[in-house]
Amino acid sequence: MKKLKEACGVFGAYNLDGKNISSVIYYGLLALQHRGQESCGIAVSNTKKDIKNILCYKDMGLVSQVFNKERILELNGDLGVGHVRYSTIGESIKENAQPLALKYIKGTLALAHNGNLINTEELKEKLQRNGAIFHTTIDSEIIAYYIAKERVKTKSIEDAVSKVMKIIKGAYSLILVSPKKLIGVRDPHGFKPLCIGKKDNTYILSSETCALDSIDATFIRDVEPGEIVTITSKGILSDKRNCITNNRRGRCIFEYIYFAKEDSYIDSVSVYNARIKSGEFLAEDFPVEADLVIGVPNSGNTAAKGYARIANIPFAEAFVKNSYIGRTFIKPDQNERNIAVKLKLNVLKEVVRDKRIVLIDDSIVRGTTSKEIITLLRDAGAKEVHIRISSPPFMWPCYFGIDVPKREELIAFNYNKKDICKILGADSLEYLRVDRLSELVNNLSICKGCFTGRYPIRIKK
Amino acid sequence: MKKLKEACGVFGAYNLDGKNISSVIYYGLLALQHRGQESCGIAVSNTKKDIKNILCYKDMGLVSQVFNKERILELNGDLGVGHVRYSTIGESIKENAQPLALKYIKGTLALAHNGNLINTEELKEKLQRNGAIFHTTIDSEIIAYYIAKERVKTKSIEDAVSKVMKIIKGAYSLILVSPKKLIGVRDPHGFKPLCIGKKDNTYILSSETCALDSIDATFIRDVEPGEIVTITSKGILSDKRNCITNNRRGRCIFEYIYFAKEDSYIDSVSVYNARIKSGEFLAEDFPVEADLVIGVPNSGNTAAKGYARIANIPFAEAFVKNSYIGRTFIKPDQNERNIAVKLKLNVLKEVVRDKRIVLIDDSIVRGTTSKEIITLLRDAGAKEVHIRISSPPFMWPCYFGIDVPKREELIAFNYNKKDICKILGADSLEYLRVDRLSELVNNLSICKGCFTGRYPIRIKK
Amino acid sequence: MKKLKEACGVFGAYNLDGKNISSVIYYGLLALQHRGQESCGIAVSNTKKDIKNILCYKDMGLVSQVFNKERILELNGDLGVGHVRYSTIGESIKENAQPLALKYIKGTLALAHNGNLINTEELKEKLQRNGAIFHTTIDSEIIAYYIAKERVKTKSIEDAVSKVMKIIKGAYSLILVSPKKLIGVRDPHGFKPLCIGKKDNTYILSSETCALDSIDATFIRDVEPGEIVTITSKGILSDKRNCITNNRRGRCIFEYIYFAKEDSYIDSVSVYNARIKSGEFLAEDFPVEADLVIGVPNSGNTAAKGYARIANIPFAEAFVKNSYIGRTFIKPDQNERNIAVKLKLNVLKEVVRDKRIVLIDDSIVRGTTSKEIITLLRDAGAKEVHIRISSPPFMWPCYFGIDVPKREELIAFNYNKKDICKILGADSLEYLRVDRLSELVNNLSICKGCFTGRYPIRIKK
Amino acid sequence: MKKLKEACGVFGAYNLDGKNISSVIYYGLLALQHRGQESCGIAVSNTKKDIKNILCYKDMGLVSQVFNKERILELNGDLGVGHVRYSTIGESIKENAQPLALKYIKGTLALAHNGNLINTEELKEKLQRNGAIFHTTIDSEIIAYYIAKERVKTKSIEDAVSKVMKIIKGAYSLILVSPKKLIGVRDPHGFKPLCIGKKDNTYILSSETCALDSIDATFIRDVEPGEIVTITSKGILSDKRNCITNNRRGRCIFEYIYFAKEDSYIDSVSVYNARIKSGEFLAEDFPVEADLVIGVPNSGNTAAKGYARIANIPFAEAFVKNSYIGRTFIKPDQNERNIAVKLKLNVLKEVVRDKRIVLIDDSIVRGTTSKEIITLLRDAGAKEVHIRISSPPFMWPCYFGIDVPKREELIAFNYNKKDICKILGADSLEYLRVDRLSELVNNLSICKGCFTGRYPIRIKK
Repeated sequence: MKKLKEACGVFGAYNLDGKNISSVIYYGLLALQHRGQESCGIAVSNTKKDIKNILCYKDMGLVSQVFNKERILELNGDLGVGHVRYSTIGESIKENAQPLALKYIKGTLALAHNGNLINTEELKEKLQRNGAIFHTTIDSEIIAYYIAKERVKTKSIEDAVSKVMKIIKGAYSLILVSPKKLIGVRDPHGFKPLCIGKKDNTYILSSETCALDSIDATFIRDVEPGEIVTITSKGILSDKRNCITNNRRGRCIFEYIYFAKEDSYIDSVSVYNARIKSGEFLAEDFPVEADLVIGVPNSGNTAAKGYARIANIPFAEAFVKNSYIGRTFIKPDQNERNIAVKLKLNVLKEVVRDKRIVLIDDSIVRGTTSKEIITLLRDAGAKEVHIRISSPPFMWPCYFGIDVPKREELIAFNYNKKDICKILGADSLEYLRVDRLSELVNNLSICKGCFTGRYPIRIKK
Repeated sequence: MKKLKEACGVFGAYNLDGKNISSVIYYGLLALQHRGQESCGIAVSNTKKDIKNILCYKDMGLVSQVFNKERILELNGDLGVGHVRYSTIGESIKENAQPLALKYIKGTLALAHNGNLINTEELKEKLQRNGAIFHTTIDSEIIAYYIAKERVKTKSIEDAVSKVMKIIKGAYSLILVSPKKLIGVRDPHGFKPLCIGKKDNTYILSSETCALDSIDATFIRDVEPGEIVTITSKGILSDKRNCITNNRRGRCIFEYIYFAKEDSYIDSVSVYNARIKSGEFLAEDFPVEADLVIGVPNSGNTAAKGYARIANIPFAEAFVKNSYIGRTFIKPDQNERNIAVKLKLNVLKEVVRDKRIVLIDDSIVRGTTSKEIITLLRDAGAKEVHIRISSPPFMWPCYFGIDVPKREELIAFNYNKKDICKILGADSLEYLRVDRLSELVNNLSICKGCFTGRYPIRIKK
Repeated sequence: MKKLKEACGVFGAYNLDGKNISSVIYYGLLALQHRGQESCGIAVSNTKKDIKNILCYKDMGLVSQVFNKERILELNGDLGVGHVRYSTIGESIKENAQPLALKYIKGTLALAHNGNLINTEELKEKLQRNGAIFHTTIDSEIIAYYIAKERVKTKSIEDAVSKVMKIIKGAYSLILVSPKKLIGVRDPHGFKPLCIGKKDNTYILSSETCALDSIDATFIRDVEPGEIVTITSKGILSDKRNCITNNRRGRCIFEYIYFAKEDSYIDSVSVYNARIKSGEFLAEDFPVEADLVIGVPNSGNTAAKGYARIANIPFAEAFVKNSYIGRTFIKPDQNERNIAVKLKLNVLKEVVRDKRIVLIDDSIVRGTTSKEIITLLRDAGAKEVHIRISSPPFMWPCYFGIDVPKREELIAFNYNKKDICKILGADSLEYLRVDRLSELVNNLSICKGCFTGRYPIRIKK
Repeated sequence: MKKLKEACGVFGAYNLDGKNISSVIYYGLLALQHRGQESCGIAVSNTKKDIKNILCYKDMGLVSQVFNKERILELNGDLGVGHVRYSTIGESIKENAQPLALKYIKGTLALAHNGNLINTEELKEKLQRNGAIFHTTIDSEIIAYYIAKERVKTKSIEDAVSKVMKIIKGAYSLILVSPKKLIGVRDPHGFKPLCIGKKDNTYILSSETCALDSIDATFIRDVEPGEIVTITSKGILSDKRNCITNNRRGRCIFEYIYFAKEDSYIDSVSVYNARIKSGEFLAEDFPVEADLVIGVPNSGNTAAKGYARIANIPFAEAFVKNSYIGRTFIKPDQNERNIAVKLKLNVLKEVVRDKRIVLIDDSIVRGTTSKEIITLLRDAGAKEVHIRISSPPFMWPCYFGIDVPKREELIAFNYNKKDICKILGADSLEYLRVDRLSELVNNLSICKGCFTGRYPIRIKK
């Protein structure tokens, strides 16, 4: 039951023996598909060829739809980068698909970006006042421009990138493919994840560690917030001149709560463990007498197990999902409105009948889905439904890459907890306490702006 | 982790007010998609039009791929039937997609079939000796021929069907669309499920009850083994002259163990409950000291919960699936063989590390997947892996619609339990006892031929 | 400017050395595409394999759209038949595409048919009264049924076909693929063409000789009306027991006037010459003082050259066609009605300005296109426009395969020549004289039913 | 028989009443499809909306394949531009499709370009040294950059364009869509055509007049070489500050000889007349005793008619083309090489048998096609074949937009006339005299560089 959308996933690879890496990137993107389902692309360079040229293919659609065997074979190169993307409706066009493959003063450059800049307008205007033209509406193009501009004046691509990091503000995990280098960059606050792996003689950069596992690669380490990592035929180089002190960093806590895949580790913290803990904290802070703990699939299930363990109430799965209801299915029309949720979820009556239930969900955004799910449970015979949300109330915009509805549509912005509970038809409602968030991630320095309105970077409005 | 394939799912609908039912059938088929993913189709009749004509569209692919809004609107009718199909490789062609829409002496007829006849060759030869021609290689065409032949001599379509039921032998749940009737038929042994539902003024026939839930219809009752059910503008008529005594019936036990969706009820027995029980029985009969019970996703999870409850060992989910690895993804080639399973499944190391594990799976067919999964667990740090299979050893062919590999490929046919345990790399291995099967389904009379070699109908070889 | 539609084209091939013939059939069908553009298909048999099986692929669309390299390679066989089809709107469905590939008492059979039977209903009813079921609404299925029924009683497929020829009435040029035989059949009246060719060790059967030329095959001879030709590994066998006397034959004169490709020969008469003659006869019978003779593209051009030669008036091409306006282009809507013809045809003002013009067209059906073309010419400055039609007035239905509009829509049925001339806005109008038709084709015995209402076979109405 | 490829066609429209013009552009592009068949696109702006945004859709394929009704409706705007494109193989990628739709300092800009610049590398390098990035390899992007740069400093887009015209060198007919203006630009030499038309309240800019006719628009005038034409709600404005003297202009003579559609007028000269004249000149300069004059379809036919008239020898059409052999058909492989030409062209034996023939073609490039056609004629019984080419020998590269093979592949570069005649197997061979070229086009100042090696602009090599 998708409520919030993530911007992107990035995956780069460089085989030092000159072997083709397009299929490695393909499998990596499949493993990152949960981070973006609207468009995807792969750009590769062939470092062994004299004439530098980047081959790039991208289109709207899932990885398995956009690429077939033939296309993967055509993308013949030993160094490359892939991207999966979600986008807000207005910009859901082919032109905005990534990676960007460009020609500039130093030859070719491919670039894939996860995150959101906050000084885009200002940066764009400055460029335009110099005669720049823009083919897309994505931040990546602005970043590419600044790299190109700095590259004219600098000795290396890393120097150019380092200078650009002082200019651009916001969240960015970047992967660059320069003729003979694979470069990973993470913004100084470290909003978005990025890690390094290796398989045989292929180096990998990936948004999440789950993609390393899926291709049987070994995790080496996370790219540090503010770090520029360069992989060449000589191995990994690190440039940390843009790093800031640990306590000013601000990893996105929602990656742990919701976006990232459960089997991933971000900055050495297990996403799975963070979710288990969120349930445990809810059980400690907001206990309730009940017969069963259930989670809203799929993301609520893990927190539910944590709650169940601490509360010593049995965990159960009460919902059966239809995994064939994909993006392309024909939505029910007005007359069939009542079946919209039922097509996706069915309740196991055996499980919930006459039971007092603790229902764990990861968040409430507009409240509509939660309400429908509670109705499903009541119709199936549940006696009581106590909702526990494994994150604090969602009340503020995110400027760093999460697509949040307008504030007026956020139920927590419009109503207090008591009213929301009534609207949803629940017997009780509690949210994870804000002061518990850091504990979820072993006290890493995090961004919790969407819950508190206070962000790691000052936002000009 | 699909190991065995089911033949088909059928879904019929008749709106007595003359309203369009093609979208109802579309949603019904989406809910039955787990029963067949190779081809699908919908045939509709418009009972309010003077000239009878059946519109039919079918193609290879998933329901959401084959049908779009435009096509559903073109299938304008108030009476119709849909079908989802899996097929063995040799016959995976468009011509064999269902429903069949035909013209015969009494006008038009559409037919959808789930199951497998055992006297096909004999029946076909008899027809051919009379000059029959066959467009397909599916049983449904033979059934249609016999209905057409009998229809010449009988007063009603039901009489014709009733006579045909004495001629054809094997498993069949049929839905027929005759100009103004929706007819459901279940073979006397009741191998395959078929039930009746209703939503407002629309009558439904469906392979499984989960499809009724998904469109918010009410379950009325199962079609009885041997019964012919006719739905006309006057309501439901029943013809039971082909019914046999209860104890000679033979529902397919594999529907409960594996094929059917967990939220379905077949002959009033909950599939979910049957799976829970299978785990409970395994725990009672084959206990083992362990720290965790886990299931092979998705079908092993429910039995695992049953085992956990009786054994009083915590249940956990140790696997994270990639739900974007669909039918169309590019399979890893020889050099990438080791990632074939990892792309689909990742293990949560937190969960399994240093643990003694009971691993529940629904069946072992060739043994290859089980072996790979045990390797995954060991690599993630599991100390012990005890496999418990929620069905008896799979050793005999199925003649009634399950696509079983050749006997020589069945690991249980080639090796004894001890050897299999060693091959798989497990610490212990146990199967559900054959005498426990009937208990799973409240002592309904079942077919357990694939485990015992004894079938409800004599098989000529 | 298509006004009348032909039913079909057929093309069969058999390579006696066991080489693949699917690409030969593909190229043959491309050359016959003018005979049908709605659907197409190819069925092949592999005579060298022990197990007989016919592979068949067919779909809606042009030959170059339906088939790609991969599909042609999959159709691996040394004996096969292809078909291109046009169909009336109601029946424009995939199921009716040809060839039909069937299984029957003697194994497999593929069948492709050009023409139209006139006793279909009667034949169908007889079969249905015996319990037959029909998957399609095409004559070919009826023919296949009768062949299957006769085959039970006869020693050879040719004997069966010969018997069926006594039962079916109407127009048919058939190609059959039986496990090891390629069989061509032409109805006794010879309505539709069929010829034999050879290239290296591949025998060909084709609707028209132009398809032989396009694959560089040599023309051997026409199949005689009433003849059954069998090609086996031993060469060509002929069975003429159903032939009738020459003067009772009735080749479709419209094949010469309009349907066939200009470079084809039918029954040894050049289509090109027939068209040249039609123009010459018009010039002899209906001369007019003028400056230019022009033809309506493309079919009117050749007759125009004949007219020009006899009348000693210069021939010119006044129209430029847009060859990119295919079947799939978006038709102009109501507001854009005036551009419907202009998108397809532009007039060369240089050529027609201030000229007295003889405009040759092959036929007038409804009259709408002719009217628009005359308007185009007048707008471009033509002083006079004299229409000469290279066929007699079209007034009667065709029962043998031409898709003629309802009689009430035929302008020649509703108005006399003088009124039509006025409606079209022409200065004079003349048609080819009916008594000139036989001369066009060297006095072959022809069917001119659409002009006279008298047909070679009695029509029951 | 395509031998040389044109770069592009452009078509712009602006409806002053705010009505949708996407379908007008669609039909315009259909009429210009002969100028480019690889990719196409449409970009539209809605001048009535407050927020300026350009909608753009483009893809590989023909106009009728890339656009369907739905897409045309989505492109909702009253001002727009379309483009059809051919491209050399290396650059045949989606990214290079046009129009380009961009954002820059003054908002949005769409741009479509026909022609080729000769100082691209120099211009590109200058931009890159300033930090520019390039998404494509097409000249249009460079032009857009310079416009954007100049636009920063100028008061109007026309001023910016005017300055850019002093910087860029080569052939360009441009259409620009600026928020509320439709702008047409033609390079000072006027290499490529561009004209203005009007239909009701819609102004049109088009590469050729044939597109005006096809949508029933009225021709207003040609854009003058060097002129900038601006269409706003107030009508047509003209800026001629970049115009040069008449005798320095250099229209591409090959537009008249080969590229343009016969029904077009370029700079008030009829393409049809130019072709007729080319044949007449050949007859005057190189007469030969013969029985027939025939043209290689389609472009040779008109010149053939001119030859026939002056030589007083009958004109005939000896070839029948297969119009279903499109871009997507499966090319014959090595073993089928001999049918490559025959699939496309068949000879009417009636016409050529025993005849002495004058064969007119528009050009000889590599010579292979000409040779095959002569062989076809000889095989069909032609006694003599005298080739007359309606252009001079093709010996030099074109720098302005025609895709000419490498010089070493040009037969006229490698052999003298006598040898070529022998290679082709002709009885005689003559080319149009270079001094006749200007006469073809009423002594307009032309570029004949591909025949003479002397170009209107100095080429740096």
